[in-house]
Amino acid sequence: MRTLYHPSLQEMSLPTVLYALSDPIRLDIVRRLAENGEQSCGALNLSGPKSTLSHHFKVLRESGVIQTRIEGTQRCISIRNKDLNALFPGLLDAVLHSLDNKNYAELKK
Amino acid sequence: MRTLYHPSLQEMSLPTVLYALSDPIRLDIVRRLAENGEQSCGALNLSGPKSTLSHHFKVLRESGVIQTRIEGTQRCISIRNKDLNALFPGLLDAVLHSLDNKNYAELKK
Repeated sequence: MRTLYHPSLQEMSLPTVLYALSDPIRLDIVRRLAENGEQSCGALNLSGPKSTLSHHFKVLRESGVIQTRIEGTQRCISIRNKDLNALFPGLLDAVLHSLDNKNYAELKK
Repeated sequence: MRTLYHPSLQEMSLPTVLYALSDPIRLDIVRRLAENGEQSCGALNLSGPKSTLSHHFKVLRESGVIQTRIEGTQRCISIRNKDLNALFPGLLDAVLHSLDNKNYAELKK
């Protein structure tokens, strides 16, 4: 079975995590995972070419934002909440809160 | 006098701001500005080629993270705290707090 790379805490860095979050599709993935917990990639119900989505999952995983668990033919992904909060306390919450911020949402209408 | 582009609140977006912050040098610039308030680019005392630094200032300015004020031959830059907090409350604080987080700093030693 192919093993997927996941960075250790020592390998994670703030610039890399911020970069992983600097894309609307990846932010959408993270928001859905934050709302619903671990899910299979398919269950996320994202639109777009599979290769594009695979790329986004990879960027999120290799930065340490998400972890991927292989179960049979499925890949189940979840946010590495504990690791992110140990290294970057409050960061993910601030990002998710910003996404939902009324002032920001109104501007984007 | 050349006018520098600054995005309006309507033009600012979370992915673009996160991207602007996803670089160690740009994070360093933002940290220094957060600690010391408005400063001339020269007073920031950053090492590296001038063209590289100009690029980083531009990315920060065009995302809406900083504003640049031209004063004579100097460019004075500062963080757009009010605008950032209106759109993305708590985000910049979480980023700066993460940079200084003990757990993270220990790992990077």
